[in-house]
Amino acid sequence: MSDAQKQPQNAPKKQNDNLKLPTREQDFSKWYIEVISRAKLADNSDVRGSMVIRPNGYAIWENMQRVLDGMFKDTGHQNAYFPLLIPESYLAKEAKHVADFAPQVAVVTHAGGKALPEGERYVIRPTSETIINRSFTNWVQSYRDLPILINQWANVMRWEMRPRLFLRTTEFLWQEGHTCHASEAEATEETLRMLDVYERFAEDYMAMPVIKGQKTESEKFPGAVNTYSIEAMMQDKKALQAGTSHMLGQNFAKMFDTMYQSKEGKKEYVWQTSWGVSTRLIGALIMTHSDDAGLVVPPKLAPLQVVIIIIGKTPEERGPVREKAHAMAADLKKAGVRVLVDDDETKGPGFKYAEYELRGACLRVDMGPKDLAKNEVTLARRDTRSKETIQVESTVARCHELLEQMQKDLFEKAKAFRAANTHEVNTVEELKAKADDGFLLMHWDGTPETEKRFKEEFGVTTRNRPFDLKQEPGKCVLTGNPSTGRIVFAKAY
Amino acid sequence: MSDAQKQPQNAPKKQNDNLKLPTREQDFSKWYIEVISRAKLADNSDVRGSMVIRPNGYAIWENMQRVLDGMFKDTGHQNAYFPLLIPESYLAKEAKHVADFAPQVAVVTHAGGKALPEGERYVIRPTSETIINRSFTNWVQSYRDLPILINQWANVMRWEMRPRLFLRTTEFLWQEGHTCHASEAEATEETLRMLDVYERFAEDYMAMPVIKGQKTESEKFPGAVNTYSIEAMMQDKKALQAGTSHMLGQNFAKMFDTMYQSKEGKKEYVWQTSWGVSTRLIGALIMTHSDDAGLVVPPKLAPLQVVIIIIGKTPEERGPVREKAHAMAADLKKAGVRVLVDDDETKGPGFKYAEYELRGACLRVDMGPKDLAKNEVTLARRDTRSKETIQVESTVARCHELLEQMQKDLFEKAKAFRAANTHEVNTVEELKAKADDGFLLMHWDGTPETEKRFKEEFGVTTRNRPFDLKQEPGKCVLTGNPSTGRIVFAKAY
Repeated sequence: MSDAQKQPQNAPKKQNDNLKLPTREQDFSKWYIEVISRAKLADNSDVRGSMVIRPNGYAIWENMQRVLDGMFKDTGHQNAYFPLLIPESYLAKEAKHVADFAPQVAVVTHAGGKALPEGERYVIRPTSETIINRSFTNWVQSYRDLPILINQWANVMRWEMRPRLFLRTTEFLWQEGHTCHASEAEATEETLRMLDVYERFAEDYMAMPVIKGQKTESEKFPGAVNTYSIEAMMQDKKALQAGTSHMLGQNFAKMFDTMYQSKEGKKEYVWQTSWGVSTRLIGALIMTHSDDAGLVVPPKLAPLQVVIIIIGKTPEERGPVREKAHAMAADLKKAGVRVLVDDDETKGPGFKYAEYELRGACLRVDMGPKDLAKNEVTLARRDTRSKETIQVESTVARCHELLEQMQKDLFEKAKAFRAANTHEVNTVEELKAKADDGFLLMHWDGTPETEKRFKEEFGVTTRNRPFDLKQEPGKCVLTGNPSTGRIVFAKAY
Repeated sequence: MSDAQKQPQNAPKKQNDNLKLPTREQDFSKWYIEVISRAKLADNSDVRGSMVIRPNGYAIWENMQRVLDGMFKDTGHQNAYFPLLIPESYLAKEAKHVADFAPQVAVVTHAGGKALPEGERYVIRPTSETIINRSFTNWVQSYRDLPILINQWANVMRWEMRPRLFLRTTEFLWQEGHTCHASEAEATEETLRMLDVYERFAEDYMAMPVIKGQKTESEKFPGAVNTYSIEAMMQDKKALQAGTSHMLGQNFAKMFDTMYQSKEGKKEYVWQTSWGVSTRLIGALIMTHSDDAGLVVPPKLAPLQVVIIIIGKTPEERGPVREKAHAMAADLKKAGVRVLVDDDETKGPGFKYAEYELRGACLRVDMGPKDLAKNEVTLARRDTRSKETIQVESTVARCHELLEQMQKDLFEKAKAFRAANTHEVNTVEELKAKADDGFLLMHWDGTPETEKRFKEEFGVTTRNRPFDLKQEPGKCVLTGNPSTGRIVFAKAY
């Protein structure tokens, strides 16, 4: 019997009970909030709809930022920073933009100890197209200045009536890309290139399969010509829009006179794009992979990839184990693994197992004196909860293998789940039966009126028209009118 | 004669003239603003006192962030994120805090399409002690939860009446560290530890010598028990406060009931610190090293360490050079050097030399067909503007040497400049004569009244009481009253 098997009862039972989560089956929504709270990812605050992102949650965001920032730079983008406040008058320049955002913004009316004159009030940026275009107008003169490829990491604010940690918060952190091009074709190419970047990030790093496609007219970004999205399925079978990329055409350029002189000497409006992902992705990550024991994070983004638990009742037992554990941690760290040694004597192994499952440590190494006498340790994997006994020397190699395997397995599992919950739906009866059942591929007559009926009568909304779904004509499920092809509907976050 | 020497007249003279800066001697203030504008570091915006940080400027901030973030993590700190908005009532909890900050804040009175009730208004954070303490109160229960070591990268806002790019802007980017400890001694230790981190960053990375010391009572952070700073000397001999570290005592803990249960079972208030540096450091960097030709950035923080200029008039000449240049750039990149190849045929070398001097590329490699025939390139150094001819194969090694040398030389030069402009001042006559002349080490009677007279009558303010200046008694320069030791006075930004 290994030390790990012998000792899990060490922890006071009460502590373990306190850590128990509601199951996903019982109450998915409560489970989600509890995972966030118990894993110390985020708290609510006294500021309406604004959250505090705690170190465990922020560390996931830092890993996401590092990867995405590298991808943006590899595709030629540079970071810059624009003002938090936007003159109220800017927002008003684009009709659809102001109509959608004005009711959501926070307005600064007093500053520096005085009321601001009516025409000089500011809103806190809900997004930055307008203020960035003001700069683009100064920066662009000639076709030689194009393309301009900018990204901004920033906080933005949209007053939120039904806030939900990470998914819908009044303030959130995000990146927003903003680009200018000399032609429509180049702008479209950029829009789709960045959608591809998002897809690659979601699938290769978040291990979250996504559907790439085009949003309908009514779901477009206010001010865009076309909006594209990646859509993911959560474990409750609801859809979550995980990232959007917009072809803005010349809409903002015209409002801000963003023009360039072409090779032929003609003044032309630039063609633009914008694209963004936010801390919402942390919510998506949680709802895609985590289980009833707590957080599960794909290794590539996990703040904690390996935790080494020191087991032993007496200082004599713990001393040699401690030494070995720190040597192993140093080896793992050198090999690029994010690792922690837990040497807290005030808590038993059983308590710790539950704690690190909650927190989403990918692998756990249990190390006790009996194991070490046999030159062995126990290695436990977070997602499958499988255990194996391995030789001490093979720890680094085996951890690397298992982390890679876990990354793949999480993706495959999520893909299988999505496949099992994606349905072609052809009749109202089927729609009624399947409305809560994942992604519904349906014919729709393309009118906003019918789209609204789908939403109001069945609670399902259009997600996107997938690029890789062959478009074949058919009949709208609700009206029987002609449809050019199926589109993904789902209940959504 | 090398290609580089032969061709600098290539560029139209007019273009070069356009790039000319005012000299530091002529008008330091105008020179500073022009360097920022011509090097495309930042722009003013339509938002009062808020700047746009352009890619060239933001890249410096990213390098600063990367280094500082590593230093914070090495000293045990974790990043987190707290709300941008602070309930107005929080600010009011600490008397001195609200007195100093209330006149500077921007206030949100409307949100989500409605006026907020009087008691529910928010201010945009001018600093986050209050809202972070609110979280600490939830997080701290027992001595086992201490210390809490948090850092936040964020934007903050202080309404600015006399804005100046990077140095004083309404919105600025910064990091703010916030920690809780079980004892006063630990909090003091942390305060000084982080001051040391700032000193190390300023000297080893920014190549900017700083004086570490304690601020006077009247210059303390509102709400702190003690404030410490690092103070640097700019090339116009004015002082710039480059970073501060505060021992907050139990002031904020008492306002927010941030308490822990000690080992002995007693409820105690935590002891706290906070510390910050901001985008102001970019202003300090510019004013410490740059010259009349433009930006000079120490290699460790320079976005562009080496630029390779392709020289050649015809496609036949440029072709082979281009190939060699990209191979060299790949070698440099592999060796960890930030490098760019300039292959723009529409501009001549002379124009480019001026351009990259403006932008602060540390080293320039000129590569033309004649040089290559001899297997040589010309290497020019930004700070000394010295040139040398080297063999192609030795480029990587020589670039490394010169970058290291430049980093050291910039620091030594700045240190010599500070030494030459630091004076012991003992009489009012000397003070009158030296008031514009750098750091003045003077005896002062320690009263706020006399401190005010120094400021109002001579324009000099107390910077700090340096740790490494032996404190010997003397007589106040203004009042003749006893003084316990000299303190640094200077005109300051």
